[in-house]
This record gives sequence, C-alpha cells and structure tokens, in this order.
Amino acid sequence: MFDVAIKNGLCFVNGEFVQANIGIEGNLIAYVGRDDICGDLEIDAREKIVIPGLFNAHTHLAMTIFRGYAEDLPLKDWLEKKIWRVEKLLEPEDVYWGSLLGILEMLKTGTTAFSDLYIHMDEVAKAVGESGIRAVLSYGMADRGSKEKADLELKIGTEFIKNWDNAFNGRIRAIFGPHAPYTCTPEFLKRVKDAAIELNTYVHIHVAETKWEVEHVKSVYGKTPVRLLDEIGFLDERTVIAHAIWLDDNEMRILKERNVSVVHCPISNLKLASGIARVKDLHDLGINVCLGTDGASSNNTYNLFEEIKMTSLLQKVITGRADALKAKEVLKMATENGYRAYGIKGGKLERGYLADIVLIDRRRHNYCPMYDPLHSLVYASYGCEVTHVIVDGELLVEDGIVLTLDEDKIMDKVESLKEKFEES
Amino acid sequence: MFDVAIKNGLCFVNGEFVQANIGIEGNLIAYVGRDDICGDLEIDAREKIVIPGLFNAHTHLAMTIFRGYAEDLPLKDWLEKKIWRVEKLLEPEDVYWGSLLGILEMLKTGTTAFSDLYIHMDEVAKAVGESGIRAVLSYGMADRGSKEKADLELKIGTEFIKNWDNAFNGRIRAIFGPHAPYTCTPEFLKRVKDAAIELNTYVHIHVAETKWEVEHVKSVYGKTPVRLLDEIGFLDERTVIAHAIWLDDNEMRILKERNVSVVHCPISNLKLASGIARVKDLHDLGINVCLGTDGASSNNTYNLFEEIKMTSLLQKVITGRADALKAKEVLKMATENGYRAYGIKGGKLERGYLADIVLIDRRRHNYCPMYDPLHSLVYASYGCEVTHVIVDGELLVEDGIVLTLDEDKIMDKVESLKEKFEES
Repeated sequence: MFDVAIKNGLCFVNGEFVQANIGIEGNLIAYVGRDDICGDLEIDAREKIVIPGLFNAHTHLAMTIFRGYAEDLPLKDWLEKKIWRVEKLLEPEDVYWGSLLGILEMLKTGTTAFSDLYIHMDEVAKAVGESGIRAVLSYGMADRGSKEKADLELKIGTEFIKNWDNAFNGRIRAIFGPHAPYTCTPEFLKRVKDAAIELNTYVHIHVAETKWEVEHVKSVYGKTPVRLLDEIGFLDERTVIAHAIWLDDNEMRILKERNVSVVHCPISNLKLASGIARVKDLHDLGINVCLGTDGASSNNTYNLFEEIKMTSLLQKVITGRADALKAKEVLKMATENGYRAYGIKGGKLERGYLADIVLIDRRRHNYCPMYDPLHSLVYASYGCEVTHVIVDGELLVEDGIVLTLDEDKIMDKVESLKEKFEES
Repeated sequence: MFDVAIKNGLCFVNGEFVQANIGIEGNLIAYVGRDDICGDLEIDAREKIVIPGLFNAHTHLAMTIFRGYAEDLPLKDWLEKKIWRVEKLLEPEDVYWGSLLGILEMLKTGTTAFSDLYIHMDEVAKAVGESGIRAVLSYGMADRGSKEKADLELKIGTEFIKNWDNAFNGRIRAIFGPHAPYTCTPEFLKRVKDAAIELNTYVHIHVAETKWEVEHVKSVYGKTPVRLLDEIGFLDERTVIAHAIWLDDNEMRILKERNVSVVHCPISNLKLASGIARVKDLHDLGINVCLGTDGASSNNTYNLFEEIKMTSLLQKVITGRADALKAKEVLKMATENGYRAYGIKGGKLERGYLADIVLIDRRRHNYCPMYDPLHSLVYASYGCEVTHVIVDGELLVEDGIVLTLDEDKIMDKVESLKEKFEES
C-alpha cells in the first residue's frame, strides 16, 4: 500500500513512453512498473500521459505584476524608463502576491520546481511554502562597484540562505544569485563564490545575455564574461548560468570543462532581441542545458511548454537542419536537466527520485491523432492540458484546480496592485 | 432589435480597445457603439475581450491526420520518405475527417476563416459547410512538366471553383492553388493566371519557402521565383503567396508594386528549418502581410495565437530591435490583413463588415494583471481562452463548446484512421 498510486498511465520512463503504475511513499517515488498497486490515494491515469515535473530553471517570479506593463520598447528604454522605475516601487506585499500568481500559472502548466532570482525573497519563500511547489531561491545581488553595497548585498544574500535553505521539508533550496558580470565586480563575484563554497551551495547568475554585455565586460576587464569568471575561479559544477547567448567555441569548451549548467530562455531572448543561443552546440558538447522562462514581463507567461517547443524549433532554423534538436532531448532539458543543474534528485520517473509528477490529458483535439505522445507533448501542447500535479508527494493540482491556492483571490489582488505602477 | 447583440465587451475597434456593444443583422455587423442595444440572442461580454475573427491564411487542413507522424527529420526525408508516401494513401474520407478536426481546433482557438490548398477538396468544402466556418479553398495543382497532367490539373481546379465558389451563403470562396514555381512550369502557371482572370478569382501559391527552391528555379529558368512569376504576368492584387522567406530587396519591391499579399507562417518555417521571413521589411514597404499555420504536420497546431506571438518575437530578434514589430500590427496581420488578402470584407469590428467575431475570457491567470488587453492577447495567450465564436452571423462556439461539431466523434474517427499510415 503506497501513499499515492498513479495507475495505468502512459509514463515517460528512461526516455520512452510506456504503460506503467507509479507508487509514491512520502515525498519519493517508491515504485515504477507493471504490477498492480494500491494507494491511500489512487489516481486513475488511463487517459493520461505521465511525465516528471517540469523545472523552470530561470525566473524572476514576482514580475507577473509587470506582465504586459512595458511592451515593444528598445531594451534600454524598457529597462531604464520602465522596469527599473517600477521595481523601485515594489513592496514586499507586491512580491508575495506576484509570486503566488506566478506559482499558480506554473502549477497549472506542469511546472513542479523553479529557480528564482529577485528581491524581497522572504516573500517568495513564503509563497513557495504555502503553495507546495519546489523552488531554488536566491536574492539578486549587485555591488555595482561599491564596497559598502557589496558588504550589504552579501549579508542579505547569506542571511537569506541561512534562514530558508531546506525549509518546508527541503522544498526550498536557498542559494546565491549575483546578478551579472556587468553589475557585479570581479572582487564581489569572488567573495560570493568563496561564500558559496563555505556554505556548500550553488550560484545562479546571468551571463552573456546581450552582445552589449560582452563588449562592455571586454572593454572594462579586457576579456569576455565567461573568461573573466573562469579566471577568478567562479565556474564549477555548482554554477548555473542563464542565457549564455554570446559565446565563442572556446568559451563553450570552458563551460563544459567546468561542468557549468546553462539555462536557455528562448522566448525572453527573442522578445528582448537579445539573440538565439547555440543550444544544439552546447548540448552536443555534453553541457547540461535546462530551460527557463525568465520573468513574466519579457515572455509574458510561465508556461514552460512554450519554451519546450521553441527550443526545438529555433535550433532547427539556426542550424538549417530540421533534425537539429530532437523532441526527447528537449523534454529532458525541461525536466531532469533542470533538477540536475541545482543538484536535486528529481525530474525522472524512477525509484528513489523525488515525487514531482505531472499528469496530462491525452484526450485533447490538439493531441489527435497521437502517433507518439512525445511529439504530441513537445510540438502540439498549448500548456492547458495538465490535469494533476504532484510535488514532494503531495497532490497540488487536481483536474486543473490548484488545491493549495485561491485563484480568484490572487487574481483580484494582483489586478488591484497594478494601479500604483501605472503612470499618472 | 438585432439578430445578435454582444453587450458590454472590451472591443478592438479602429486599432484600439474600447467598451462597446455590437449588433448583428443577418451575416453582417450592423452596429458598433455605446448605445444600449437588444438582440434575439444576447451575449453578455462584460468579462470578455471582443476581437474580429482570426484568419489563418495558409493551411493544408486535412494534414491534422499526419500531426506528429514524421518528426525531427531532414526536410528531404520528411517529404520523400514520409509525407509523400502517406499522402498517396489519403482517401477522400480521410480528408473529410481530418478537415473536421482541423476546423474544430481553429474554431476553439478563435479562427473564423482560413485559406486551404490541398487535395480531395470536395471533402474540405463539405466539412466547411457543416461546421459553419468561412474558407477560401483551392485544389493544389502541379503539372511537373507534363502537358497531360497540366490539362487534368487545371480541369480539376476549374471544376472545383465552378462547383463550390460562393457556396453556403458565400462562406466558401473557391480559387486557384498552383503549388509552387518548382513543381509547376511557367507555361502552366501562365494558363492558371489566365483562367483566374477569366473566372475573376484569386490565386494562392507557395513562393520562396526554401533556399533550395530559389537556387533550383534560378538554375532551371535563370531567374528567381518572384522575378519569374513577375515576367509571366502572374503577380497582381489577386495573388497570395505563402512563405516568401528568401527574397532580395528588389523582389520585395516587385511584390509591393504588384500589390501581392504575403502569408507569413513562422512556426512551420522554423520547424522545417526553412528560414525566417523579413516580415518587418515587408510590412514597412506597405505589403499586406497576413499569418498562417501551414499544415498541422509541420507546426503541429492550428492555434493562430502561436503564430501571432512568434511573428512579433522573431522580427525583434532578427532585427535586433525589441520594438521591431508592435503588438497592434501583428493583431491586424492575424485579422483584417487575412481577409483583405482574399478580397473578403471582414476582419474588422465595423458596420458593414462580415459578422465574424471572437470573444475571449478576460479573467485568466495568464492575462493578469491586464495593463492593456492588446498585450495580453498578443504576448500571453495560450489559445484556450476563446469562449464564443460567431461566423457569418451564426454562433458556432459557446463557452468553449463547438455547437456544430461532435468533438468526441471526430477525435475517435481520426484516431482510428491513423492506423493505415503507420508503418508496419
């Protein structure tokens, strides 16, 4: 008798879709196989596709509150005239409600875990606790050349880790989140890395997102961001870099040698006109590539199915090969690679892995006919086919309803908060 | 008293979202304004966004039946080993059911009209008739250098027009659909154009989809496809070309001078690794650009909201400007530009226009908060937010249910048909 039994689903196991039953004990997968099993809670999955939960590996979650606030603007105006202005107005309460809205969207679209880098992170942690989702959280730090600010930022970042790491049965991992090589000095980044080693934790950072960044870092430090980070000993298997668009072949080899993970955020990268990362090349080199949405104001959703489809399609067009990046590889990027990037044993339907599991309705017009569930999922999903979501062994979404959150209340609240950001 | 009154919606009128009531008489919009109106049927739109229906301007509708059948293959293998093989097995009944499935998906995602080029077109016409959707239909012709085939193809294409043009209260427009300049000889294309002029109708054709096509046409005829078509007098305001990816500046000017319309199919173009069309340049030249999904086997959905978002995002990244193509311009491409391309007075919420209208639920987590409904629609839609669809004055979708089609029956049928295409 398992705590939860998911019965007769079409399950993504070892890279193939097979008919199977899944037994959960506590927060772990305890059984995957053909035996008839029972559970205190039994979920009939005969009409479902069952996959490991999606991992959204780079977000600024509370930016739901700025979703659609600033559109179709050059990047400089978008940041300087719009986003930075309203971020100054952000209060802890805004971050709390914006985070709940983001979590609501992620759970409804099959995301069981995410990695967030932002401000007022205590509020994000509270939202994670209440909702039941899993998260890797980091306070976004930038010293911008000031020793005083560096001290303060590192203090806030370190306290956040001490206060929240392993909270809620380990659902929260708190790590360091220095913003980027153009907003943090090498000295500060070195201090952050030392602190991360001391605390035995991970570092999440933006690197090589724009051509401007690379040119700027080169003009200031005489080398590209990746080379600069490598020289100061910043890059290792506990470093996760977001974007990684403007890299040369040698920098890719450095990332491989250092076992750095890369988060690809295709839609944000298109929307801000940043560029298209060479994901096939990174993948072919054996680098662990995972997927992220970035913040909702440059996307504008947290629906990871959009990133899944676009990751495959964009690599096809930039390489000129329709076989460039296969559906299975991309589904792995969206699941196990995200968990692996942050050292969490999840993202696979396998005994001993965390019970973060998503059930998807097979009976949808857009999945019809179904030659192969893999291709249906990767190329024909809208994102609204998810019916059940289990995180850490707990059922959080049932028949599309998020059991732990009050959807109407969250929407009303966020709608009411937007007023203060609108220009008079 | 109108036949239908849509009351208190947030309506896209003259490029702006305004609070309005819409009155329908017969198949036309008879009133748009603030007056309180009544109707035999009244639709409460207080919680809705109201837009003109989307026009999917390039499809091979029945290819739903091959959705997910051949994936991640080089274009040559995809076509020669997979698609052409199964298309030979296609029977009229398959096209009928495949078309119904495609129409089901389009109606559910707010598409009120489409332009289709395929085979067994009588079956597509029947499906259009039963479902209530609007369509521009053409039999896909190719002579491949044979005079005998040319005669036969033109005969089938012409008869199709004579049998179906203006059927179902004018909901069907039947036009000519020669396949492409590399599958049709210039002599044949000239005959098609002459016949189109005689029948006072339009021509829908694939042009400059792949680099290979352009090189091939140049090697055979000594000039690019657009120049070849222009020389034989093929291009005018009644010509609609799909894809138009591989064009030089001069060819763009030719298209503008001839008032040709272009159908942009961004997702198919990525998926088949064909390339990214220079839509911003085409648009800036004043060319009428509209949007299409292409066939479901290279997409894999008929959800035009995906094309809307991708059209904007791809132009941002290829021009390096986040302000490259604005949301409003793209929404027009998806609505009025499609209708205009085929000479149909629809795609606008304006008195005297066809009553093809879509209502969208405003109260969705992914639209929250709503700073501007335009940006919510273009950047945050999944496609499943559509609640009501009216075509030609008739309510076809109510609360997400397609009233004219039996969804379960269609899915079961198409699922059962796939067997014969699977390899033994």
